[in-house]
Amino acid sequence: MKIAILGLGAVGRGVAEMVAAKDLGISVTGIADSTSGIINPAGIDIPAILAKKQKQGFCGDKHISAGEVLRKAEYDTLVEVTPTNAVTGEPGLGYIRQAIRQKKHVVTSNKGPIALAYKDLRRLAAKNGVALRHEATVGGAIPIFHMLEHGLAGNEILAIFGVLNGTCNYILTRMSDEGLTYEQALLEAREMGYAEADPTYDVQGIDAAIKLVILANTIWGNGVRLEDVDRTGIDLLTPDALRLADEEDCTIRLIAEAIPKKGLLRVAPRIIEKNHPLVVEGTLNAITIETDMAKEITLIGKGAGSIETASAIIGDLLFIRDCYVKRA
Amino acid sequence: MKIAILGLGAVGRGVAEMVAAKDLGISVTGIADSTSGIINPAGIDIPAILAKKQKQGFCGDKHISAGEVLRKAEYDTLVEVTPTNAVTGEPGLGYIRQAIRQKKHVVTSNKGPIALAYKDLRRLAAKNGVALRHEATVGGAIPIFHMLEHGLAGNEILAIFGVLNGTCNYILTRMSDEGLTYEQALLEAREMGYAEADPTYDVQGIDAAIKLVILANTIWGNGVRLEDVDRTGIDLLTPDALRLADEEDCTIRLIAEAIPKKGLLRVAPRIIEKNHPLVVEGTLNAITIETDMAKEITLIGKGAGSIETASAIIGDLLFIRDCYVKRA
Repeated sequence: MKIAILGLGAVGRGVAEMVAAKDLGISVTGIADSTSGIINPAGIDIPAILAKKQKQGFCGDKHISAGEVLRKAEYDTLVEVTPTNAVTGEPGLGYIRQAIRQKKHVVTSNKGPIALAYKDLRRLAAKNGVALRHEATVGGAIPIFHMLEHGLAGNEILAIFGVLNGTCNYILTRMSDEGLTYEQALLEAREMGYAEADPTYDVQGIDAAIKLVILANTIWGNGVRLEDVDRTGIDLLTPDALRLADEEDCTIRLIAEAIPKKGLLRVAPRIIEKNHPLVVEGTLNAITIETDMAKEITLIGKGAGSIETASAIIGDLLFIRDCYVKRA
Repeated sequence: MKIAILGLGAVGRGVAEMVAAKDLGISVTGIADSTSGIINPAGIDIPAILAKKQKQGFCGDKHISAGEVLRKAEYDTLVEVTPTNAVTGEPGLGYIRQAIRQKKHVVTSNKGPIALAYKDLRRLAAKNGVALRHEATVGGAIPIFHMLEHGLAGNEILAIFGVLNGTCNYILTRMSDEGLTYEQALLEAREMGYAEADPTYDVQGIDAAIKLVILANTIWGNGVRLEDVDRTGIDLLTPDALRLADEEDCTIRLIAEAIPKKGLLRVAPRIIEKNHPLVVEGTLNAITIETDMAKEITLIGKGAGSIETASAIIGDLLFIRDCYVKRA
């Protein structure tokens, strides 16, 4: 199996490292970061280009663009891991479309294109007889889509509830455990590297809402959009609210929930019993799926991290290898 | 896809009901309980035979044995859901072997044959070009084996920790939450239908140990046996022990754990922090998998129940349908 990787941030680096370190039968024949590219049909020397990237800030040849890698490299599957843009989906969305039209399978961790255009992309992939997989877009290392597709095959999915943003969960955990104010906990999250300088995207529930949209569209194909999510962030929560919850053996978590039969699509801070499986600590993510046969199944795991997200991408790659590439 | 079902207890009934209720493209052409059988190449009328079973105590013709259904019915896949015998594996083990030799796929919820003879059965299945799946043997509705096979593909599994017995977990939850003695909690578990008249198999950790053996053999193919498990039950635990754990924000749960690199294979009551993902309430099951890439992933769900276990069996059936039967 031959792959091309577009994007060499934390996720792209993780994938490249793991593919190089493990004997998975995967060879990388094209890589591009935002300013350079490299193409090698015989397989790229991953440790060398990662060292170059670290030293010089770019991985390949400045004259080779991502678009050129996309068009000219020899590969079965594109790993599209460029930065997310939730408004336009670009540049990832264009790369994904082009790869599918070239009859390449696509694996992506990029939430923008999947949240914006999942239905179109699926149709395009079906038309071109290729796979489009996006395990890494929701819940980091948690293989939620594999679980839904295989483990829970035959089940009707009735509802989904999730702790989908590690930054918010860290802040709420610290407010709850240590009685910190929102501002104190946010400052701490920044110092730990869990929150960005501008935390809006996380703390106002936008990131969680995008993931909820991806889950809903993947499960129910109902074409919901970010604007359809009833959304409240955690930035107005007070230590008093958490103290009151604590008195009832409860706590507060930012819960994303979708219940199609009730028309519910919401991200909001919710009071929840401390012993509920969704109450996880720190930056963990958790997802509960409610079905007709299996009833409630909860998955808990790391929602971010270079190697953790690479795990999800490699799971998708191996699925494509076994179900498509080997049988082609 | 055509299936034969051997065993018509809670699990077999659940499978039959769900196959009849859902449009899965599965037809049941043979069924046997312990005293009768029925064969119909055109598809058995499930509601009628379930009604007969409830009214008369048997489902079919007293002159047709399970062995006859196995040999004479027309089916692709055997659903083997007869009662578990942890010592001999019979009658399930014999049924499974015979079906595989007849080149039938097998799906089973039967812990005995899988714990005793997994390696042999896998070899036999590979030799005959058929699938052998056993999702329902561990963790009820939790699709742990699908998760390991697909979602975590490419990961090295380093360790596994589980709350694998709902009866013990119920007793420990009640001792912890209400300060009950072991005897009081056991009595309550019996009244709720969670514990058998003779609770030895559950409370001494035998059931959890069998599931641990199945997990270890499936993941690592290391051929461990029930006798290899270092096993301690919960029947000697005192309310004092739970009270002491509680003072440290911990509780006690019966944890099954396998860490091959440490040579550890153990079922024992363990002191564990209350906010650990494995600390689940009541009869729930929970399994944590530790891997090199995804790190820790925890799954929580119902460990028993007719329809919940049917969910696991149907997941296996649909996987076989999509990967084997359709491609044959």
